[in-house]
Amino acid sequence: MDFNRIFDYARETDAILIIQGNENSVDKTFFYLTGVEGGLFEGSALVVKPDELKIITSALEEETARQTGLEVVVANGKGEFESSVKDALKDANVVGLNYQALTLEEYKKLLRIVPEKEFIDVSSSIMESRIMKSPEELNKLREAARIGSEAFDAVLPKIKEGITESELASELAYEMMKLGASEPSFSSIVAFGENASMPHYSPGQRKLRKNEFVLMDFGARYKRYCSDITRTVVYGRATEEMKEMYDVVYRAQTESMNIIKENVNGKDVDLAARKVIDESKLKGRFIHSLGHGVGMDVHDHPALASTYDFPLKESMVVTVEPGVYIPKVGGVRIEDDVIVKKDTFELITTAPRDLIEL
Amino acid sequence: MDFNRIFDYARETDAILIIQGNENSVDKTFFYLTGVEGGLFEGSALVVKPDELKIITSALEEETARQTGLEVVVANGKGEFESSVKDALKDANVVGLNYQALTLEEYKKLLRIVPEKEFIDVSSSIMESRIMKSPEELNKLREAARIGSEAFDAVLPKIKEGITESELASELAYEMMKLGASEPSFSSIVAFGENASMPHYSPGQRKLRKNEFVLMDFGARYKRYCSDITRTVVYGRATEEMKEMYDVVYRAQTESMNIIKENVNGKDVDLAARKVIDESKLKGRFIHSLGHGVGMDVHDHPALASTYDFPLKESMVVTVEPGVYIPKVGGVRIEDDVIVKKDTFELITTAPRDLIEL
Repeated sequence: MDFNRIFDYARETDAILIIQGNENSVDKTFFYLTGVEGGLFEGSALVVKPDELKIITSALEEETARQTGLEVVVANGKGEFESSVKDALKDANVVGLNYQALTLEEYKKLLRIVPEKEFIDVSSSIMESRIMKSPEELNKLREAARIGSEAFDAVLPKIKEGITESELASELAYEMMKLGASEPSFSSIVAFGENASMPHYSPGQRKLRKNEFVLMDFGARYKRYCSDITRTVVYGRATEEMKEMYDVVYRAQTESMNIIKENVNGKDVDLAARKVIDESKLKGRFIHSLGHGVGMDVHDHPALASTYDFPLKESMVVTVEPGVYIPKVGGVRIEDDVIVKKDTFELITTAPRDLIEL
Repeated sequence: MDFNRIFDYARETDAILIIQGNENSVDKTFFYLTGVEGGLFEGSALVVKPDELKIITSALEEETARQTGLEVVVANGKGEFESSVKDALKDANVVGLNYQALTLEEYKKLLRIVPEKEFIDVSSSIMESRIMKSPEELNKLREAARIGSEAFDAVLPKIKEGITESELASELAYEMMKLGASEPSFSSIVAFGENASMPHYSPGQRKLRKNEFVLMDFGARYKRYCSDITRTVVYGRATEEMKEMYDVVYRAQTESMNIIKENVNGKDVDLAARKVIDESKLKGRFIHSLGHGVGMDVHDHPALASTYDFPLKESMVVTVEPGVYIPKVGGVRIEDDVIVKKDTFELITTAPRDLIEL
């Protein structure tokens, strides 16, 4: 990782300070820049200067931090942490902060610890760096996508009458971890029948019955990088109506994915999918945007959305996930992960996309 | 949930606004107050007034939100979201915000959307409410603890020569989810042999060998509530040195846990454990604090730490987790979850605490 890239759009800063909060306020930029694969690093900090990275952490993470080979300052307790931050910033007048991740509480603390600094928001510069995946990052994303795809194949035989949504979610987690994931990249969505009409449904005790949709939205985390895949299969036989829903979503995905390449605007990719759905009987049933970036975050930059005017660049990675939802009836979503290339795209999720009847 | 409790220490506010960020900036207060068990609610908001709760969310979560029976405003896109927030706050002059969870970016947006409001930090008032668990919350915590404890029993037969740390972590996740967890409450730590010296180690491809420690720190999430358990077992036979390490930690845990009851200070509980370790040959090897609250967050309030002067109250829930760590050699940690009672404590993790040799 050439960490100096985060200064590309933040040249006015003398240093960038990344603060790790707790489990609810994580700045993955910490892991992006240090390459640390293990550990939590809650309450740790990273001071970035051109050609210099310094980790400030507690004894809890010291051994993990030292394995990076980077400079490590061990600070136990609030007092030592604050004086270490102050010391690391002593030559910096203008300090960049990631406003997208820093909590207001941590910011107020900084105003007290180093009141003389000028703080500026460098979240855009960080995003511009993180949005372009390096060859090494792309390989991790390919591996995360492979794991997710193979887990899908592995759970198909488990889809039987009477299995609950929760049980199927546990099978997905198990298979992904056996295949090399450190964990699922997010809480899997497993929705049977009418529950598939809720895009962000959480799996429950609902049992699978014959001839209904099984929607699975899941992904693997591999060396901190995520995949995000959705497959909708039918347990039993699909009715004509179900086949039509699937076919519309399938075509929307195919037609939108096929136009992806460098310099195509994300909103045009969204519109290509929306056009297919809105010209069908399912007009108005596609109630979310087409996709999002995927990286260390499951929902990363950029968005593929009608309101998001943004030309795609080579080595960005996005999901393509059209869906249709009919409350009380059900839904279909198909989601794949693709790498944007100069003249085309690379599909990295390899699970079969055709309608599967089990 | 009597949500009006969050105003107990914030009586000067006309309304409290909870903003849900993305996967990296989650305010669980949203789920605490609404009781929503499913969904992500990224970019949603909750407006709380005395005796009134209003959810502002997108079509993605609409169906899930409506299941709560609370008032729901559906706002798609930035413009609608901003005008909905503005409208919901129209009669409020003083608006409370959760500075511990709100990002600086979201705060700057609010300053633009509703510049005329006076904002105050109500994170302490929210914490004071969330720290005291209701009978219903305690039942969810008991269930999360039961699931974790039974998963420990279930994975013991899987601990065999040659299994990797990652594989054992996947078995833990699987068993917890089969037993009713929605997911592990955090990425399990599974550390073999010398790796157990790193308190926040992440499991890797290290294979298990005879006669070494297996440290497992894991927990279940059940209806959004967490458990957090650590067990250290020996695969094979423990050496005298290993038995001594275990015995010291076991005694430190027993002696500190036994003094827990209402009005005992958390720092005295920490000191009781520290005394046992520092009077042994392992003096100085206990490099973290004794415990932390557990609730919707794995690391919740209060801390049991020598620097944290805080009397415990009935219906708080804390972990008790002394440990000793010897770099390059290994470590032992034993962690249980307890409910503070008026004259005693209730141990809710039931996995065996005695040294197990497999």
